[in-house]
Order: sequence, then structure tokens, then C-alpha cells
Amino acid sequence: MPHIDFKNDFPGIRSAMAYSPETAAPMGELAEILLRSSEGLLPAERELIGMYVSYLNDCFYCQHSHGEIACIYLGGDRELIDQVRKDYTKAAISEKLKSLLAIAAKVQQGGKKVTPTDIEKAKEMGATDKEIHDTVLIAAAFCMFNRYVDGLATTTPSDMDSYPLRAKQIVDKGYGNHVFTNKQPV
Amino acid sequence: MPHIDFKNDFPGIRSAMAYSPETAAPMGELAEILLRSSEGLLPAERELIGMYVSYLNDCFYCQHSHGEIACIYLGGDRELIDQVRKDYTKAAISEKLKSLLAIAAKVQQGGKKVTPTDIEKAKEMGATDKEIHDTVLIAAAFCMFNRYVDGLATTTPSDMDSYPLRAKQIVDKGYGNHVFTNKQPV
Repeated sequence: MPHIDFKNDFPGIRSAMAYSPETAAPMGELAEILLRSSEGLLPAERELIGMYVSYLNDCFYCQHSHGEIACIYLGGDRELIDQVRKDYTKAAISEKLKSLLAIAAKVQQGGKKVTPTDIEKAKEMGATDKEIHDTVLIAAAFCMFNRYVDGLATTTPSDMDSYPLRAKQIVDKGYGNHVFTNKQPV
Repeated sequence: MPHIDFKNDFPGIRSAMAYSPETAAPMGELAEILLRSSEGLLPAERELIGMYVSYLNDCFYCQHSHGEIACIYLGGDRELIDQVRKDYTKAAISEKLKSLLAIAAKVQQGGKKVTPTDIEKAKEMGATDKEIHDTVLIAAAFCMFNRYVDGLATTTPSDMDSYPLRAKQIVDKGYGNHVFTNKQPV
């Protein structure tokens, strides 16, 4: 049961965003830029970083929501998503993305955990400054989103079939206001 | 030394924001709403929550930046700021704010750490749903800001006299784009 009365029945972050549309607007805008830009990292890579940080933060709603979005970008390869979560070092992803996931995992623990060695490794694997910047900010932003979702005890849908439906909405329409205004299909 | 080349000499989060103005805009907008609104929590209370979470995240730049801003709102009472950092339960602040700082400290550890008992306590002390919502989101947002600042190893000014100067700029002008465009006075 949510910690406060959201006055709506939306699941997850959508309930908190509908409760507070004035803060939801810049949060959605930040998600739109960070997760759907194709400058440097691909949207699939950005969503994988968000999914992985959400997994590390033990946020069920976010890790499955963003895992499904990444899955769509990856042509339905759910096994790859599961492998990244289980042990990304053995997943069929680029060495560059592995080095960035290592940085994201450090950011999840705390900003100061990121070392010059982590950064050097990513640069050796071909990561640009922009890609490192975006990785750090995506990881940091999910440390916010995850805490917003679980810190207010938003409702987590247990029907796993609902996640792909919502994921398709995001892939089709982005992270705009429809996230917390459109009640269809769930 | 910063982990990436920001191509500017701004201190702290301002260097990362100037490097990436497209993400800085919604982050500034979120800070403006969360920290300067007077609906429910006062700006001084909002800044104290941000300062305290930054202290728990061991982010020197943010805790001193926001500590100085809170100090201005509190008429220069720096001792109170220090006392909140040291042990807020003994500070001369309301019981409601103490119960909200307890929630913020839980959010800093992770969203799921917040318990129904923490929420009940805050409500008993007079906190509204809106104030609890804002507390959780301020704490969550600082978990992002702090990680952005330290995860990229932005420059931390060691000249403590510079913090009150920047704080006055924020109190006067808010969290708009001047944060990363105006090079005066530091």
C-alpha cells in the first residue's frame, strides 16, 4: 500500500508523477533526453544501464519496465536482458558497454566509488567523454527514480504481461506526459 | 581532476551542467520546483533536507552549497546548519522536520528502507502527504545530484568563502541557467 494517498490507481512511478505533475514534467524531460538520445550511446544501451542500476537498487518496477523497453529495442532478446542482470561480463554486449556498466554500478554505490582506473578502462574500450557523462548521469538519475518509486511505496504490478504493454507505449511515444495521464492499456 | 574534459572551469555541478546544457535544463527546473516552492515545506526546510542528504552521501560540494543557501534563509544561523548535520534530533527545528529528515535519511540508504512507521511518525507530527512526497523526492533528487557531482569528479572549491557568494546568487536568482552560464563572481 502506498505511503501517501496518490488519488489515482496508476502503477509505479506513474502514480507519483500523476500526483505531482509539476515535478513530473522535468523528470520526464530528463528521461526523454537521457534514454532516447542516439548521440553516442544507443537507446538500447541507455535502457540497459537504467535497467541494471534499477536491479542493483532492487527496484522491481523500474528494472522490469526498463528491461522490457530495452528488450523491444533489441528485437525481443529477453535472454540478453536476463544475462546482463545476472552477470553482464558474460553477456553478448560490447566491451565498451561492459566498461560503462562497471561505472554505472560504481555510481549506484556512490559517486566517489568511480575511480580513474574505471574511466581509463572505458576510454580504452572506445568510450567518449560524452558517453561516460551520459552513463554517470543515467545511473545517477535511476538512483533518483528508484528511490522515488520505492520511497513512496508505489504499487508494483505483479502481472508481468503488463510490462511489455507499457514498454511499447514508451518506445512509441517517449517519456512525455502521457506516462501519467493516459490510462490505456493499463 | 575531473574524469572527463568539461571544457570549462566551473566548480562542482556547474561544470557538468555547462558541459551538458540539454540535461541541465530539466535538472535545474526540478531543483527550482523542489527547493524554492513554499507550498507546504519552506525553502529553508527543503534546503536543509538537501544539505543533510548530501552530507550523508559525503558530497562536500553539495552539502556546503546547500548548507549556505539554507543559512541565508535562516538569517545566517550557521550553527543550526552544523547542528542538523551533526545530530538533527538535537537541533532547534520542529518535530515535523525531524521526522521528515528521518525519512530523507532512509531514502538516502534506499527507497525500501522507508517504513510505514516512519510515515506514521511524520503524519503524527503534522506532515501532510504533499510534504512527505516532497521530502522523498528531494532526498531522491540529491542522490542523483550528489552522484553526478562526485561520479564525474567535478572540481570542489576549497575556498570556503566562495560558497556563501554562490549561495546568494541562488537565493537571488534561483536554479535557472545562470547557474552554469554566469561566471561571476566565482
